[in-house]
Amino acid sequence: MKRRNFLNTLLGLIAGTVVSKKSYALDRRQWKMVTSWPKNFPGLGVGAENLANLITKLSNNRITVRVFGANEIVPPLEVFDFVSQGGAELGHSGAYYWKGKSPACQFFSSVPFGLTPQEMNAWLYYDDGIRLWEKLYSRFNLIPRPAGNTGVQMGGWFNKEINSINDLRGLKMRIPGLGGEVLAKAGGIPVTLPGAEIFTALQTGAIDATEWVGPYNDRAFGLYKVAKYYYYPGWHEPGPSIECIINKDAYQSLPEDLKVIVDTACKAVNIDMLADYTAKNNIALNFLKSTNIEIKKFPDDVLKTLREISDSILSDISSHDEITKEIYLSFTEFRDNINSWTEISNKSYLNIR
Amino acid sequence: MKRRNFLNTLLGLIAGTVVSKKSYALDRRQWKMVTSWPKNFPGLGVGAENLANLITKLSNNRITVRVFGANEIVPPLEVFDFVSQGGAELGHSGAYYWKGKSPACQFFSSVPFGLTPQEMNAWLYYDDGIRLWEKLYSRFNLIPRPAGNTGVQMGGWFNKEINSINDLRGLKMRIPGLGGEVLAKAGGIPVTLPGAEIFTALQTGAIDATEWVGPYNDRAFGLYKVAKYYYYPGWHEPGPSIECIINKDAYQSLPEDLKVIVDTACKAVNIDMLADYTAKNNIALNFLKSTNIEIKKFPDDVLKTLREISDSILSDISSHDEITKEIYLSFTEFRDNINSWTEISNKSYLNIR
Repeated sequence: MKRRNFLNTLLGLIAGTVVSKKSYALDRRQWKMVTSWPKNFPGLGVGAENLANLITKLSNNRITVRVFGANEIVPPLEVFDFVSQGGAELGHSGAYYWKGKSPACQFFSSVPFGLTPQEMNAWLYYDDGIRLWEKLYSRFNLIPRPAGNTGVQMGGWFNKEINSINDLRGLKMRIPGLGGEVLAKAGGIPVTLPGAEIFTALQTGAIDATEWVGPYNDRAFGLYKVAKYYYYPGWHEPGPSIECIINKDAYQSLPEDLKVIVDTACKAVNIDMLADYTAKNNIALNFLKSTNIEIKKFPDDVLKTLREISDSILSDISSHDEITKEIYLSFTEFRDNINSWTEISNKSYLNIR
Repeated sequence: MKRRNFLNTLLGLIAGTVVSKKSYALDRRQWKMVTSWPKNFPGLGVGAENLANLITKLSNNRITVRVFGANEIVPPLEVFDFVSQGGAELGHSGAYYWKGKSPACQFFSSVPFGLTPQEMNAWLYYDDGIRLWEKLYSRFNLIPRPAGNTGVQMGGWFNKEINSINDLRGLKMRIPGLGGEVLAKAGGIPVTLPGAEIFTALQTGAIDATEWVGPYNDRAFGLYKVAKYYYYPGWHEPGPSIECIINKDAYQSLPEDLKVIVDTACKAVNIDMLADYTAKNNIALNFLKSTNIEIKKFPDDVLKTLREISDSILSDISSHDEITKEIYLSFTEFRDNINSWTEISNKSYLNIR
């Protein structure tokens, strides 16, 4: 080899090194995650934080994710639009907040008398759930993934005893979404209030009742100090699935392994958050039992009426457009079907344990 | 810069490149996973395959995992020892197979009248479960992770109707582990048979009954062709957790991000396998309903007696040694405690849906 050729080869090798170092640097992404929860809010906010940390660690810092709590960049209910437009690459929220975009969104969090967490994951991962969810969100430039679950919620805090469906007439209750629509049809007055105002509203009698989440989150809010009864079960939200929404352009720019990393982190947080809620709800429930709160079950005939109203409202929703109908049919068919297995497995077992 | 110095610098840079390429090559690991299931066996074997693929993809081939079905390298019940000794880096199996190592192992898969999958994950991830499991397995040079769940199983296939506890006397049933011990105390004759021999044994009357898994796996075995009754619920295995065992030296040799990758892949397969079983059990159940099989619930008083026997057997086990006692107390305290939350959430909701 001539000296000049030798030098050129050496220089070429070095250049190669530099290019490779440069592309390595380019392969580092700094992502933002906006959420609908206060930063580190127990359960939900911790789940967002866990998801961000997991993506960062799994990718060995090739994606570093910084989490922003509600109102740090955008208000809680603008997460969807902000991620859709690319203001942040990731969002952590609940699909039922986006019913204004499409009523079909609600099926991907929770609907009254819907699926338990175990059934929901079966529908999402092994039936048509995620496929339909992706179809619905693709028009908004978003890719959705399940990324958490609170488990079956509680029915709520009441200062009025519910003995018959008539007791819901005129009841002012903080209950958003479909649960609120069902209450309205039963003669009640659903009220929308941000979390921070619930305690005072219940204390002053501005509202007669409120739902929130379950013992773990509700205890921290102190609601047991201003209510008489804590009702179950949470017929209106039997295990809301929490979502991670990913800006589609950001997702599609990822190499294959980073796509798998984002998907898998969501799956891990999905199971993790439910385990967190399950363990902590139980501890908080034990505390609540030591207070003056009376823990009561809604009467069966009240639940039966609420179920009938819920079914009719879901059926009404389905006429909204073609894709809502498709999602409604897939969801309700799966729910009515899975019941025969749940009946002889989980339900039967819990009844005899 | 003098020419010689310049050349030396260039050569140094190239040498650096070579070293870096070499360490890159060294960072590639080819791992083996031995399992207790036939290769690609529905549910369990597919879960092992999914876990291996996920580790490979998440790590972008820095760890490539090759799966071996039962008997390909070692028999199904030698997975524990083989991974412990470093013959393979990973194993996919069920902890109750290792009760000969320590009776405490059984608490990490499933025990009669134990936890549902949701409760089990709460105990493992957010109570003392995984910490105690690691403590137990560390003496075997293994690190355990939950990596799948079959959900609540079925009670089994019977050719004899069970109307009272007396009907269990003399009943020859293929039922391994603690379930078998309970049956024996109830006067039955537990039989151990490998999966491949069950069909013929039931057909020829060599056994009167057999448990297996649930509709999805049982249907594939054709057991509905040779039994009269399909009993529920699976009191003896209310949601076995499936394990991934990792050779401790192999795990500890990993850089931090690969450790997180292995842990997270296990978590993702944990939720995924249960979703798979839930969706497929339901489909298989619908098929079984179209056959001549009668699907029946065990009588309540039979279950009550089995529960009493189970509790006394678990209590006996706890006296084995210090760590078994510690695990027994953690598990049973968690179970008795979580019941108050499950009662007003999942159970109450399923009963009114």
